Amino acid sequence: MTNPIRVGIAGYGNLGRGVEAALSQNPDMQLVGVFSRRDPATVELLDSSVPVYAMAEVEGFQDKVDVMILCGGSKSDLPEQGPYMARFFNTVDSFDTHAKVNEYHAALDAPARESGHLAMLSGGWDPGLFSLNRVYGETILPEGETYTFWGKGLSQGHSDAVRRVPGVQRGVQYTLPSETAIARVRSGEQPELSTREKHTRECYVVLEADADADTVRHSIVTMPDYFADYDTQVHFIDEATFERDHQSMPHGGFVIRSGLTGNNNTQTIEYSLALNSNPEFTASVLVAYARAVHRLAEAGEVGARTVFDIAPGLLSPKDPAQLRKELL
Amino acid sequence: MTNPIRVGIAGYGNLGRGVEAALSQNPDMQLVGVFSRRDPATVELLDSSVPVYAMAEVEGFQDKVDVMILCGGSKSDLPEQGPYMARFFNTVDSFDTHAKVNEYHAALDAPARESGHLAMLSGGWDPGLFSLNRVYGETILPEGETYTFWGKGLSQGHSDAVRRVPGVQRGVQYTLPSETAIARVRSGEQPELSTREKHTRECYVVLEADADADTVRHSIVTMPDYFADYDTQVHFIDEATFERDHQSMPHGGFVIRSGLTGNNNTQTIEYSLALNSNPEFTASVLVAYARAVHRLAEAGEVGARTVFDIAPGLLSPKDPAQLRKELL
Repeated sequence: MTNPIRVGIAGYGNLGRGVEAALSQNPDMQLVGVFSRRDPATVELLDSSVPVYAMAEVEGFQDKVDVMILCGGSKSDLPEQGPYMARFFNTVDSFDTHAKVNEYHAALDAPARESGHLAMLSGGWDPGLFSLNRVYGETILPEGETYTFWGKGLSQGHSDAVRRVPGVQRGVQYTLPSETAIARVRSGEQPELSTREKHTRECYVVLEADADADTVRHSIVTMPDYFADYDTQVHFIDEATFERDHQSMPHGGFVIRSGLTGNNNTQTIEYSLALNSNPEFTASVLVAYARAVHRLAEAGEVGARTVFDIAPGLLSPKDPAQLRKELL
Repeated sequence: MTNPIRVGIAGYGNLGRGVEAALSQNPDMQLVGVFSRRDPATVELLDSSVPVYAMAEVEGFQDKVDVMILCGGSKSDLPEQGPYMARFFNTVDSFDTHAKVNEYHAALDAPARESGHLAMLSGGWDPGLFSLNRVYGETILPEGETYTFWGKGLSQGHSDAVRRVPGVQRGVQYTLPSETAIARVRSGEQPELSTREKHTRECYVVLEADADADTVRHSIVTMPDYFADYDTQVHFIDEATFERDHQSMPHGGFVIRSGLTGNNNTQTIEYSLALNSNPEFTASVLVAYARAVHRLAEAGEVGARTVFDIAPGLLSPKDPAQLRKELL
């Protein structure tokens, strides 16, 4: 076996923890260390033998890390951290601010080219694997429609909104794809679907002792921007049930391409994810792409890349002949 | 718009006809001509303005065709035609003899490199899109199991076997994935599934006038190799129903990866196809890959390639910035 790929993690929240877990499933990769803006002594890893360093020290690891996986948020962390890190490392991140993706691509591309690194942005599942399926779908079936549904998934923003309602002690919100809408898409009908028709919302709430259920329910389902445009169900549960059933971070969804070929033959391509841990799955995607980034960088490629630019076989630890034999 | 990609079709059966139909959905591609071993005067295309040439003339089209799509069969046509065509053209084919894929890869790679062409083998959906999903699945979720189910699909070989049974006037056979087996896989259980548990078989038969239904049914369901190892249903129908309901070539299936991440979180990736025309869909995949092959050849790449080697964005007529903006 060749030397393992040396990986660093920049930022250690749910995603960083997921990357640490995913690396342990990939014996050709080795976690060199975690870089944090917090005091390293306060950062507790899954594996306590892995060192934690202050983010300020990161430049000293240029020759010790093959790929740095950036686990910060898209809103404020990555726009700053990405271009900075691309000066010193090959990077992989999960940037997901859709409206700014070309701007961020350009901001990574310049420093990566100047310093001779490869910087992959927007890995994960959406953007990421769902994006791939949107591209495969519309290129293979050019006459058709693509539908993306999300869920069942925990929505952090909507859960926060539920918790701000007076009388709510604890609360979570799940987004669910509409089964009816999915069935219509699968039928080949190519329907036009409104926001309300595509998804429903489901809330689980533990009430404060003196709160009135009907008042709370009404405040939630009529909340503008968050719930008013959807069919929303509110379930009231006790604290023990909440503790038992609503601690995980499920997510997932569907990308469906419905198209016609030849003499009006309906063809349907469907991709779906059912995830019990959203951050761990996103992290697993980033780790697979870190392998591809390392290979492309070794081959001399530089600049910014997305999932669209990376050949699928590069993600696998298997060599091309083995891949053809076992999986083609 | 740049010049269209000039495409040739070698071999004009169901697949070749599907390629002709698919090309008409892709305005950046142009069908230069069909090459056939039959007498060109006897070959009827969907579009009668497209010229048909004798296969013997094909070498004269070296400067007129950017990509030749090979529509012959894997058993006897492609092993001969593929390496020959790779001396003169960039090629795309749907070679699907799994056990010989590395041998065929080598047989294409040498002439393609010598003559400076790119030869893509084993396009389509299985091998092809299903293969891609097997690779993405096992690399993203290294601790898990991959399951491939086929159907609902018309099986040519099994339909032939049904028709050889005495008393059968007309017959077709469909392979169906077992709903029970799929549900077990989706649950995250990672079951071991026998052949019999994964698929069932369904036959539709028009009896000859004097035939006995029970005898025919018994002959079918006990037939070794074809049906004895499966749960097989035989439906007897009249000729008009057969004509109405059993003339298309549906197929499809499922690739499901079920894996665990982190602290035993189940993660499921599912890819499925529901195709009303198997050859038209396969053809649509080949046409999308012909675009990618042309681009890679223009960039100077030579040799044999599979779906594993080709970056997804290359399949799309859209440029990288547009792809990122619209589909990432």
